Amino acid sequence: MPKHPPLSPIVAALPATVPFVGPEAQERDRGKPFRARLGANESSFGPSPRVVERMKAIAGEMWMYCDPDNHDLKLAAAAHLGISADNVVVGEGIDGLLGLVTRMYAGPDLAVVTSLGAYPTFNFHVAGTGGRLVTVPYEKDRESLDGLLAAVKRENAPLVYLSNPDNPMGSWWEAADINRFMEALPATTMLVLDEAYGELGPASALPAVDVSRPNLIRMRTFSKAYGLAGIRLGYAFGEAGVISDFEKIRNHYGVSRMAQEAGVTALADQDWLRAVVGKVEAGRKRIATIARDNGLTPLPSATNFVTVDCGRDGAFAAKIMQSLLSRDVFIRKPMAQGLDRCIRISVGLDHELDILAEELPGAVAAARGN
Amino acid sequence: MPKHPPLSPIVAALPATVPFVGPEAQERDRGKPFRARLGANESSFGPSPRVVERMKAIAGEMWMYCDPDNHDLKLAAAAHLGISADNVVVGEGIDGLLGLVTRMYAGPDLAVVTSLGAYPTFNFHVAGTGGRLVTVPYEKDRESLDGLLAAVKRENAPLVYLSNPDNPMGSWWEAADINRFMEALPATTMLVLDEAYGELGPASALPAVDVSRPNLIRMRTFSKAYGLAGIRLGYAFGEAGVISDFEKIRNHYGVSRMAQEAGVTALADQDWLRAVVGKVEAGRKRIATIARDNGLTPLPSATNFVTVDCGRDGAFAAKIMQSLLSRDVFIRKPMAQGLDRCIRISVGLDHELDILAEELPGAVAAARGN
Repeated sequence: MPKHPPLSPIVAALPATVPFVGPEAQERDRGKPFRARLGANESSFGPSPRVVERMKAIAGEMWMYCDPDNHDLKLAAAAHLGISADNVVVGEGIDGLLGLVTRMYAGPDLAVVTSLGAYPTFNFHVAGTGGRLVTVPYEKDRESLDGLLAAVKRENAPLVYLSNPDNPMGSWWEAADINRFMEALPATTMLVLDEAYGELGPASALPAVDVSRPNLIRMRTFSKAYGLAGIRLGYAFGEAGVISDFEKIRNHYGVSRMAQEAGVTALADQDWLRAVVGKVEAGRKRIATIARDNGLTPLPSATNFVTVDCGRDGAFAAKIMQSLLSRDVFIRKPMAQGLDRCIRISVGLDHELDILAEELPGAVAAARGN
Repeated sequence: MPKHPPLSPIVAALPATVPFVGPEAQERDRGKPFRARLGANESSFGPSPRVVERMKAIAGEMWMYCDPDNHDLKLAAAAHLGISADNVVVGEGIDGLLGLVTRMYAGPDLAVVTSLGAYPTFNFHVAGTGGRLVTVPYEKDRESLDGLLAAVKRENAPLVYLSNPDNPMGSWWEAADINRFMEALPATTMLVLDEAYGELGPASALPAVDVSRPNLIRMRTFSKAYGLAGIRLGYAFGEAGVISDFEKIRNHYGVSRMAQEAGVTALADQDWLRAVVGKVEAGRKRIATIARDNGLTPLPSATNFVTVDCGRDGAFAAKIMQSLLSRDVFIRKPMAQGLDRCIRISVGLDHELDILAEELPGAVAAARGN
């Protein structure tokens, strides 16, 4: 074992963890591809055909650096929301933006509040700052607004994370509830409101856009409804002073030229978005039916996946998931206590849901038989 | 001014700086495009046509998340270098990897050594950790190996940055000199050896690949010779234990699916790379001739740009640059004391160098006349 230069104490204390194992890694381990890709909450419907055409058209321009200001995309996102470009910052997906936010507001031994079982990549980034994660259990499969608020106050936390609609449960709060939560938050606490699934649920779940609040950063992505998970693109919006602080540490040349152009084109095709939202809604209904047909209970969802209560404990749900994986159906499941009775199935194409319908009975039987 | 939640002390102390203003921002300010894009050390020759074809072919697949393991690209880069995939980590360009390295080895009040006038994005990332930058002047337009070594020892620095070949001067050290420098470094100091221009200079400037050294991280990019600056892709290689530490903090889903596939295809077309290297060599000669024709002195270059000594002080060189900009020729210049007598001109296409040849006499005359 060679002697290495000393790692920073924060990094040295971390495990070499991976927030999510990708389906590709599982396929390599299995030695064969999945037949149905229903685990990563991607949009199998893809991006707008105009986006695909645009990406093809500009492939030959990738010798040029990206615009570090993300100028055109910021303008497009701002226009989409009815705000100023000064209220928008673009990043390498919400993941990249969460990495920045944690460095901005978390730090060694500072408490950061989130829900137990919520987005693990946020937790990963908090750990990377030396921050102390404080988790609040879900209540009735929703993130607990009261619980999060109490934890924030008790711990004097500078940062709290909330996803609405929620992943991995698919649940949501109405805007009025979110607004009450925001009003009750201490001014010294920054709220990250992750709206990755915002386009896919009821409009009533999204608070009105208001960029005057100095302790709110809202995040949106092109990975879900816009069908561009592989291009790595998201944005955050908020009060201009808060947004300008991202300039201090963000990787200015981090968002590719391809992603920026794809994002501009994607925002311009809201017809496609509406069509996708309709297909996702139909897919959710079909997954719910398939689940019920197998004696399982689909939870209401405001996202592009359906979380399915398998009715027993975490081990039982894990067996169903493992059995589906062995039948070439890629899904995932919540792992936290209380949520782990569920599996999580993303909306896919019709032929993928056909495969799910074919394989789920065998998977449930296998789990019951063990 | 609204009251904001408190920023982390490190971030709060930082200016909202931008390492580089992009040409797009300048074009927006000017209200018209440049006619010759010779300032960002991009490859106007573009990526291999096979890479462009590949990007077009997979544009429709961007709904799928990227492989967070960068598996295929790591294997390809490892095979290219004759090492194991465990010795390779992929990032969002060298910029992204530098951000990680600074978080791994720098930190509040720790000294980090680099050359005065070397890559500003490294300095930006050091600032983001609260690290203390210690700069060493160039000697005869090369980064000073003796000076860097002395500063490392004097400051007990855990991290030192060296680019070879160098940007912004285009100079280089032979591998034997770099090896002597590495041998003399304390075991407690990590060397980041930035070889962004490694494919473009003499092979004799690149040390043999040796991934046993526990205090060396070498970086390569697809932005320069491979012609993919806009796709944001680079990789680092080194001792497996060092490389695995990146897993602790890197944005696992940070490198787009498009970039990963483009990189694999680019590495597979070494014929294209050789052709580009030949064109760059010819372009350097032409820039040198144009410079001499205008009474300026081109410096030797192992990169895809030529740094040109304008023969007077920094103000004079700045006037030439400003005059070229006003004549629609985008170039940049070194700003550090001693280097600032120069302008820096990237190799471009023939018609762009024609424009340079047309406009440089006027620019020099304007600078002399002022």
